[in-house]
Amino acid sequence: MTDSPPAGSPPTDAPSPEAAQAGRPYAPGLEGVIAGETSLSFVDGANGRLLYRGYRIGDLVEQGTYPAVANLLWSGDWDPGHRLATAPVPPGVLQILRALPTSTKPMDALRTAVSAWGANQDLPWPATAGQARALTAFSPSALAAFSRLRAGDEPIDPDPSLDLVEGFLYQLTGTKPDAATARALDAYFIVGAEHGFNASTFTARVITSTRSDIASAVGGAIGTMKGPLHGGAPSEVVDQLSQVGSADRAEAWVREALAKGERLMGFGHRVYRAYDPRAAALRTVAEGMTNKPEWLQLAIEVEDVALRVLAEKHPDRPLKTNVEFYAAPVLMGVGLTPDLFPATFSLARHAGWTAHVLEQAGDNRLIRPDVNYIGPAERDLPR
Amino acid sequence: MTDSPPAGSPPTDAPSPEAAQAGRPYAPGLEGVIAGETSLSFVDGANGRLLYRGYRIGDLVEQGTYPAVANLLWSGDWDPGHRLATAPVPPGVLQILRALPTSTKPMDALRTAVSAWGANQDLPWPATAGQARALTAFSPSALAAFSRLRAGDEPIDPDPSLDLVEGFLYQLTGTKPDAATARALDAYFIVGAEHGFNASTFTARVITSTRSDIASAVGGAIGTMKGPLHGGAPSEVVDQLSQVGSADRAEAWVREALAKGERLMGFGHRVYRAYDPRAAALRTVAEGMTNKPEWLQLAIEVEDVALRVLAEKHPDRPLKTNVEFYAAPVLMGVGLTPDLFPATFSLARHAGWTAHVLEQAGDNRLIRPDVNYIGPAERDLPR
Repeated sequence: MTDSPPAGSPPTDAPSPEAAQAGRPYAPGLEGVIAGETSLSFVDGANGRLLYRGYRIGDLVEQGTYPAVANLLWSGDWDPGHRLATAPVPPGVLQILRALPTSTKPMDALRTAVSAWGANQDLPWPATAGQARALTAFSPSALAAFSRLRAGDEPIDPDPSLDLVEGFLYQLTGTKPDAATARALDAYFIVGAEHGFNASTFTARVITSTRSDIASAVGGAIGTMKGPLHGGAPSEVVDQLSQVGSADRAEAWVREALAKGERLMGFGHRVYRAYDPRAAALRTVAEGMTNKPEWLQLAIEVEDVALRVLAEKHPDRPLKTNVEFYAAPVLMGVGLTPDLFPATFSLARHAGWTAHVLEQAGDNRLIRPDVNYIGPAERDLPR
Repeated sequence: MTDSPPAGSPPTDAPSPEAAQAGRPYAPGLEGVIAGETSLSFVDGANGRLLYRGYRIGDLVEQGTYPAVANLLWSGDWDPGHRLATAPVPPGVLQILRALPTSTKPMDALRTAVSAWGANQDLPWPATAGQARALTAFSPSALAAFSRLRAGDEPIDPDPSLDLVEGFLYQLTGTKPDAATARALDAYFIVGAEHGFNASTFTARVITSTRSDIASAVGGAIGTMKGPLHGGAPSEVVDQLSQVGSADRAEAWVREALAKGERLMGFGHRVYRAYDPRAAALRTVAEGMTNKPEWLQLAIEVEDVALRVLAEKHPDRPLKTNVEFYAAPVLMGVGLTPDLFPATFSLARHAGWTAHVLEQAGDNRLIRPDVNYIGPAERDLPR
């Protein structure tokens, strides 16, 4: 690095970079800065509340479906009978999925599919609820097609009689899921649909703010969610549940892990100080299943032990269960492999991303922060 | 929209959304908020200065090349002899470009190509200068290949003896450009390489901040730049120059346009109050060409007239020339069609985007602002 000004750099009459920037607020990482307004969701970490347009997440899981919740986010209207089936993958996009190496990471495949979907059509400004529906219906088919292609199987066309989440499972596995399995994954999709200005949603809004299109916004959001700091690593919960192995070993395993100073995966959350309401909603669904998948049964039992032991160890402020803890056994329980978890999370978040695109486009203002220059002062090029 | 709380919505003990958010700063569009630090460029609008790592943009155009400037941004080192040729398009990505409809917008094609490039390899965290070089060298070949494919021509392999910008023109047209043409476009690439925290660069940094990869970041940036509010519409300058037609009609045309209350394209800038230093650098290159393309000759003459007339009309604060005014005739002059302008701008900005990715990854902190909830208060679902 040759970043210091060379000897003989001439004085300049213009103000220094520092002087030009004095007095403006510096907010690294934008922590605590309110970058916009939303009517879509309220994340109330202190009280363990998550509301979509005012409705409690637990009620939405109990009484709704993912299509009804997506429609609520897009339109503001609650219609519990609202339906949305998966959409066919356009032939040109399918050709692109076939051209990807079988070793492609599912998030890269989904990002490329969404970009190609956008390339295959006009997406006029401003984005519409129709565009949001179409993209949300497309992506599950694209991910299912890629998942089959990489295994050497042919993609399966959508069955328009199935709702979005069961349709996704059908196109993934070739078998129509039983009602309880579809219900469990649908609940996961509902709790994953929306969560305020996380980094991926914020990316979608910045992209939209230049009057770009919904495929650009969602493609950027998928790229953002790909990063491990986005939050959530359900596959680590799977590793942990694998290590526990069976319910009767849970107590010994948890005590041993904590004694060794290891972190219990699936407990504690950046925002939620109380019990994560998404975890509670998923547990309720799990408990209501007559034939629980083995993974869910194990998770329920491990959670009970872990909460008891954590409360013993930290009676003043025990760690509470977070959404990852139940996301993992639901995803495993419906037959997904861990390398599909992030892309499946992205499918669920399509409702929120696209709703934020609509909200941003509806009252648009370019999102463009400033930056503090801390590099070398003005200087001549070395001769 | 059914956004008002239904009658009978129960009172709740939890604080209202408003109370939970009181006292935090609200910065719509993040205007004036400093979201981070950079050593890469200093945009000094008041004084018409643009510095890349302390070096004046005019000096860099005069004494450097795009590869040398890109290397300066990536490494901090000034090596005027630094070379970078275009890279071959991997066969899997070429197959994807062939699968795109010929009607695909070049920005959509470039975004999809970058996503597919990322899908075809591992891009381990943190991003490296090697990754930045590889992506910056790939994209011109991909855009040139798509441009040929949509016209029914076969893509042309890179000629490793050519530097990046001449290589791009060669792969686009099939003919090696003369030195003056290559020099003019190289100057355009240098002035377009970097410009602080514009919306696309900010997007690249938000994506990187989750520890995602460089292809995700640059794909998101391309999607952001696609929006017309990103700034710059050189194709409108082309329309204007077409209407003027010839230098002897310039004065009459400009006076008539202003009399009709029309806006002169290519004058005035959000940030630069003085003469845009990028326009000055491009004009200097244009003036030094022995055989100026007709478009550049016309632009020089129209600018002289327009500045004189604007100063007559607004003697207190005449509008100054901005970079678009010269970007347009340079891009037309080297033979690009207006629908390739935004994607060519994106190629130039690859150096800055990827340098910001490296800078963000080198001292990373998640970029995640807050949002103000303005939706309905907690309520029950209608039964």
